[in-house]
Amino acid sequence: MAKFSAVRFLEASGGEDAPLWLWGIPYDGTMSHRPGARFGPDEIRNASQGIESYSPYQGKDLVDLVIHDAGNIDLPFSSPEKAVEEIRSFARDLLRRGIRSCVMGGEHSASAPLVGAAFERYPDLAVLHFDAHCDMRQSYGGNPLSHASVARRILDFLPAFRYYALGMRSGDRDEFEFARALPHFHPFNLDDVPAVADSIPKERPLYVTLDLDILDTAFFPGTGAPEPMGVSVKALHDALLRFKGFRIVGADVMELSPHYDTSRASSAVASFIVREMLLLMG
Amino acid sequence: MAKFSAVRFLEASGGEDAPLWLWGIPYDGTMSHRPGARFGPDEIRNASQGIESYSPYQGKDLVDLVIHDAGNIDLPFSSPEKAVEEIRSFARDLLRRGIRSCVMGGEHSASAPLVGAAFERYPDLAVLHFDAHCDMRQSYGGNPLSHASVARRILDFLPAFRYYALGMRSGDRDEFEFARALPHFHPFNLDDVPAVADSIPKERPLYVTLDLDILDTAFFPGTGAPEPMGVSVKALHDALLRFKGFRIVGADVMELSPHYDTSRASSAVASFIVREMLLLMG
Amino acid sequence: MAKFSAVRFLEASGGEDAPLWLWGIPYDGTMSHRPGARFGPDEIRNASQGIESYSPYQGKDLVDLVIHDAGNIDLPFSSPEKAVEEIRSFARDLLRRGIRSCVMGGEHSASAPLVGAAFERYPDLAVLHFDAHCDMRQSYGGNPLSHASVARRILDFLPAFRYYALGMRSGDRDEFEFARALPHFHPFNLDDVPAVADSIPKERPLYVTLDLDILDTAFFPGTGAPEPMGVSVKALHDALLRFKGFRIVGADVMELSPHYDTSRASSAVASFIVREMLLLMG
Amino acid sequence: MAKFSAVRFLEASGGEDAPLWLWGIPYDGTMSHRPGARFGPDEIRNASQGIESYSPYQGKDLVDLVIHDAGNIDLPFSSPEKAVEEIRSFARDLLRRGIRSCVMGGEHSASAPLVGAAFERYPDLAVLHFDAHCDMRQSYGGNPLSHASVARRILDFLPAFRYYALGMRSGDRDEFEFARALPHFHPFNLDDVPAVADSIPKERPLYVTLDLDILDTAFFPGTGAPEPMGVSVKALHDALLRFKGFRIVGADVMELSPHYDTSRASSAVASFIVREMLLLMG
Amino acid sequence: MAKFSAVRFLEASGGEDAPLWLWGIPYDGTMSHRPGARFGPDEIRNASQGIESYSPYQGKDLVDLVIHDAGNIDLPFSSPEKAVEEIRSFARDLLRRGIRSCVMGGEHSASAPLVGAAFERYPDLAVLHFDAHCDMRQSYGGNPLSHASVARRILDFLPAFRYYALGMRSGDRDEFEFARALPHFHPFNLDDVPAVADSIPKERPLYVTLDLDILDTAFFPGTGAPEPMGVSVKALHDALLRFKGFRIVGADVMELSPHYDTSRASSAVASFIVREMLLLMG
Amino acid sequence: MAKFSAVRFLEASGGEDAPLWLWGIPYDGTMSHRPGARFGPDEIRNASQGIESYSPYQGKDLVDLVIHDAGNIDLPFSSPEKAVEEIRSFARDLLRRGIRSCVMGGEHSASAPLVGAAFERYPDLAVLHFDAHCDMRQSYGGNPLSHASVARRILDFLPAFRYYALGMRSGDRDEFEFARALPHFHPFNLDDVPAVADSIPKERPLYVTLDLDILDTAFFPGTGAPEPMGVSVKALHDALLRFKGFRIVGADVMELSPHYDTSRASSAVASFIVREMLLLMG
Repeated sequence: MAKFSAVRFLEASGGEDAPLWLWGIPYDGTMSHRPGARFGPDEIRNASQGIESYSPYQGKDLVDLVIHDAGNIDLPFSSPEKAVEEIRSFARDLLRRGIRSCVMGGEHSASAPLVGAAFERYPDLAVLHFDAHCDMRQSYGGNPLSHASVARRILDFLPAFRYYALGMRSGDRDEFEFARALPHFHPFNLDDVPAVADSIPKERPLYVTLDLDILDTAFFPGTGAPEPMGVSVKALHDALLRFKGFRIVGADVMELSPHYDTSRASSAVASFIVREMLLLMG
Repeated sequence: MAKFSAVRFLEASGGEDAPLWLWGIPYDGTMSHRPGARFGPDEIRNASQGIESYSPYQGKDLVDLVIHDAGNIDLPFSSPEKAVEEIRSFARDLLRRGIRSCVMGGEHSASAPLVGAAFERYPDLAVLHFDAHCDMRQSYGGNPLSHASVARRILDFLPAFRYYALGMRSGDRDEFEFARALPHFHPFNLDDVPAVADSIPKERPLYVTLDLDILDTAFFPGTGAPEPMGVSVKALHDALLRFKGFRIVGADVMELSPHYDTSRASSAVASFIVREMLLLMG
Repeated sequence: MAKFSAVRFLEASGGEDAPLWLWGIPYDGTMSHRPGARFGPDEIRNASQGIESYSPYQGKDLVDLVIHDAGNIDLPFSSPEKAVEEIRSFARDLLRRGIRSCVMGGEHSASAPLVGAAFERYPDLAVLHFDAHCDMRQSYGGNPLSHASVARRILDFLPAFRYYALGMRSGDRDEFEFARALPHFHPFNLDDVPAVADSIPKERPLYVTLDLDILDTAFFPGTGAPEPMGVSVKALHDALLRFKGFRIVGADVMELSPHYDTSRASSAVASFIVREMLLLMG
Repeated sequence: MAKFSAVRFLEASGGEDAPLWLWGIPYDGTMSHRPGARFGPDEIRNASQGIESYSPYQGKDLVDLVIHDAGNIDLPFSSPEKAVEEIRSFARDLLRRGIRSCVMGGEHSASAPLVGAAFERYPDLAVLHFDAHCDMRQSYGGNPLSHASVARRILDFLPAFRYYALGMRSGDRDEFEFARALPHFHPFNLDDVPAVADSIPKERPLYVTLDLDILDTAFFPGTGAPEPMGVSVKALHDALLRFKGFRIVGADVMELSPHYDTSRASSAVASFIVREMLLLMG
Repeated sequence: MAKFSAVRFLEASGGEDAPLWLWGIPYDGTMSHRPGARFGPDEIRNASQGIESYSPYQGKDLVDLVIHDAGNIDLPFSSPEKAVEEIRSFARDLLRRGIRSCVMGGEHSASAPLVGAAFERYPDLAVLHFDAHCDMRQSYGGNPLSHASVARRILDFLPAFRYYALGMRSGDRDEFEFARALPHFHPFNLDDVPAVADSIPKERPLYVTLDLDILDTAFFPGTGAPEPMGVSVKALHDALLRFKGFRIVGADVMELSPHYDTSRASSAVASFIVREMLLLMG
Repeated sequence: MAKFSAVRFLEASGGEDAPLWLWGIPYDGTMSHRPGARFGPDEIRNASQGIESYSPYQGKDLVDLVIHDAGNIDLPFSSPEKAVEEIRSFARDLLRRGIRSCVMGGEHSASAPLVGAAFERYPDLAVLHFDAHCDMRQSYGGNPLSHASVARRILDFLPAFRYYALGMRSGDRDEFEFARALPHFHPFNLDDVPAVADSIPKERPLYVTLDLDILDTAFFPGTGAPEPMGVSVKALHDALLRFKGFRIVGADVMELSPHYDTSRASSAVASFIVREMLLLMG
């Protein structure tokens, strides 16, 4: 007898009671250059059809976790202020119910309210920020909530000594000057990550915000602001697995822009990273 | 408070109790030339985000119907015999429960068991077959169940005088000789459709099988076997609307192949045709 | 001796003193479905390299007009209110200096302030609105300034009897009810345009706002919301040329979205229409 | 036992003794705007896998003709003078051996030496020139052998009253003035073709040179210089079939540029036209 | 005088008497996710136009070998059983005539009968299996002959201690358990290949089956099941060259899927690997 | 008040008096295989919108230099001899005025006259030639000025001991024999560059000619002749920065072919390299 196929990312997973939710933010309202990250979350789900649920790297399988794929949050496109508020309020509500989130973007500006909600709940939160771009402009195009300011918005509330800037290789002169004055700025590659991991206590609540454009354009062309000289998927994966056993209270994987990924190889990479992140959190 | 967006075709519609089901057959196992129709059903659903539920042509709205989107049927790829059996058995089961189907393909070979199941239930069934290709080879590549033989498989059981071949413009010499001997062969365009409609009693159970490649390559490049000299979307739409008020007991819309539709305009056309077909059946 | 090539649309044209300006609005901030119209103006310029400056249809040549290509207006992406204000203020300023504009979009929402500025200067203005979509939602996604509301925003100030809705074939039930109550609603095709043209006095100031998605998806796949059953380029061109000799005080050509135009044929069409529009105004 | 598949256009056809040769000119050396017609001949062959050898329009089948697919002629890319000479000499040689040619382009400039060779052999030759562009510039970019001058190069030797310019809709003012002074200039569409056909004696040696960009961009986006307002495939096909029974001593089908044909629908059209042309000649 | 160009891979090579044949298996009948490997063999030939016949790495030139490009084998698409039989029988026949084969795929399932035929002839055969995926499912989608079971089908007859699994990084938990119990399982990268090569006697008959998806998605996006964390072309090339001087009695290079290779860079890689493989065998 | 956006590469830079000019050679007239490098210069400018003007690698900012973007030089497409002459004459003229050039290609053959003009002015010039291909054919397709002969044309005048061939990995046997006899041939990778840099006096006038296909296909698919086994962007960048403080009197960055760069990642790489080159020269 025929049965219906399911193409969602985690069909075998749990319902709303699950302690770990996967959800998407199909938003790219402040992208001035190349929009399209709004299509990221659904494409990560599509690509998950080609990725196994078992990770031979971690020896773990998604089917052994209880995860709920909550779909995508619906946002107003033309008001960043409202978008930020709705993201924060949704994330806050989940945290209140004891649910951790792994979020798929969407543009990176959405990470500020996600981190903000986590910080409200975990005042001793530390943040790992993987990115090609500093994202440290005070504002961009007159908009303080733009994708180019996400690190500044996080540093509006987070103590700088609990913020780790990892792998950045692009920005204007002012951003690099600001960044270099930060306690934990590790630009250009991820070579310092083992030392960073060693310096953070394992019980510290940790939020991982990952702009996928940290990857080199060879490994990840499908993004809005591709920047040469990035790291390989293996280097990123090695860095993430350094935090195995840490207390990751939230994570996001941002900036897949499928229109620029004609082979769908970037989507496969993003889906792989989401799998590994979930297994890391699970 | 944020809410989750739904991107499925008919989210507002009914559940399994609905008298009309929409489902997909993501199958293209016998396509020797350009595969990809397997991606058709999901792309029709995606494209439905850009198509209104209201038809100003029919003055009707999908939200007023009770339809269930049952997702896609899961088929074995390497055995056409089994695929045909599973389709037939699934369709038969729905008909037994009094449910009519509007099916999204997938390659056209799937239509033979769909029509077969309808014929079992409605022995006085008439079939409208819209197509660019005769599909009248006894077998193709040694396979009697291939996409190039669907008309022959239907004529294995259906009396020829209740089979209407509409708009065909491609085939080998033998197919055209066979076709010209049929009682109702109306090749090249749809000019005869009004007369055809007038000749069929409105209470006659009708199955509409539509290979979208009947459309010209200008209007529908996104298909496996694009054939020049086809009809416009308007001509096809006019033809379909001639059957307003008829007793359509089943329908299929086949052969969207999204990989060949880089602009997604063919997907928009297919989604539009599905909307109009559902409203015609509703 | 070598010389440098110029690739701009109207390199032979006049400077800022020209009585007719061509400019672009690279904006698509409210597009929820398929963004990309922001790339339209520059792609129209690129495509103009393949289009002759002479029109054998009008017997006129762009090189005989004095036109200034003023480039693109720079807009804030995340605030539709500010964007609308900047467009209006820029258009108003040109009109004050006696300069007429032919604008290249960009999403259609930008047309409301353009028409508004023209109406301020010409209180007896009539507006021709060519479109596939009614654009008559009071608001869309909570935003009254969205691309789906442009006709409503125009009708906020323009007397309805001087507004001509031409060729619309998509909308929800409410929009069609609203539209059908308008004095001049001519849906589905452009067959009524000759009668419309005959009914408007030639000295009446006329604004032409053209959403290129009025064209069928066959002729114009490169747009954000492709809708089947549209008109041909020839039908649109015939309709536009009906207004030869009229007093066109402003015009816009909107919604080319080059990412969906892999062959660049839609760009060629848009560039052709801009040429014909300029010659009509010149 | 397995056999090897053959994917060439006319695998069943004759060898070098065949009275009709099909060959390609993979050349686009003077294309200043969008190169790529060099890939046309091979793509026409590829696309022929999806086109039947039987034409229901002509009631004839390619397998009943004796045709030789001679592959592609190898040309020097950086010297139009040499390219023209090699084409002429090759075509001349075939004609001397009593072989007629159906040539696949490649850019249209190659047609001048093809027509020239035919004219040497048939001094009473008439030429049908189907095209979107006048191609009547005395020279282009300093090059008298460019694709924009092919009609002028033909008229260098052919008496103007035996030259039929069909369907042209683009050119500069000088070209249109030149064209309008010709005895047989039928611009914009193919409505005059029946009258043209009636005026030419059937025994007159006829050369058909066809720039596929005469087709509208909807029907044929895959070309170097897409021009709106063209004819449909059906209109072109009807026009060609008007010359059934005429003495076609040579033909060419030019300017497919596959890179701009992401759906491969233009390739299907070109392949279809070549089939119909061969059957017309056979 | 003009000559005709030849675009086939090895035009300068020998005829059917050659001791080394290159042939294609344009088959992807069991690919459930992303079909298209059927187009691989011809695209490898096309891409060979851009690759030199001389290898500076091996100091050898294809023109010095005697190789026959036998084209593609024609297979029934909807019956894996028959396809497997025809491949085996064809390969067996060549081996009987003393001809070695370098095969271009096509999906990997075709390798099982190729290896099987080699094993019949060389009972002491050893097999090197390069792959991203274990391909060790007992069956997949109910099909024991699917691309996901190729290793299992080989191990049905080949003694496990003569099977070398190299570079695999994806599979389900069961596959990895099965794989880890094998005598020679070297997952994740090719670092162990030098040791493997040292352990195999040079006179041992060797079959190399290469699924190109062993390459990272950066280096080889053009494949049906792209998997992150793969090896570079250089690492694969170094590994292959370790077997210089070995007695390679057969080889296959599988799973190029050109539709996912919009830049044609993957095709260049596949063509390069085929050149190096032929030189290794020659 | 609104302002107009500027999208040119170096809008903030100087006018014709600037000591450093950036200009484009949109030429690919001798490319027999995959044309399109003619679109390179403008695409590098487009991509520069996504690249910061500040380099954290060099600690320098383009806005601090005085550079003039002179646009593109206009060349005759069908005469390589004339093209070469115009390039040489233009470059010579700039050098006479004391202006250094950073040129964007276009095909590599244009580099021979660029180097030639520099050599006229600086008889003690040394040349660094980065490339995947030897480009050492005496002529190619009968054309001594083709892209495959650029090194030979440079060696026609430049003493071999002042020519450095870096990273070449493709060519025919004759080219490699010729190359291996050169004083400074460093094939396959850039490992020898530090030693090369140490061996050249810093005051030596240096010309850097860079064919971007030296990069691996993973990092740079967007080029006419993609060749596997290349270097990473990081390796190339490291090599270029070895010449910090040298007296670079001219440079070119050639062979971006945007049509093969569907993600625009190669364009980003090319634009990045141009930025770094300008900062190196500034």
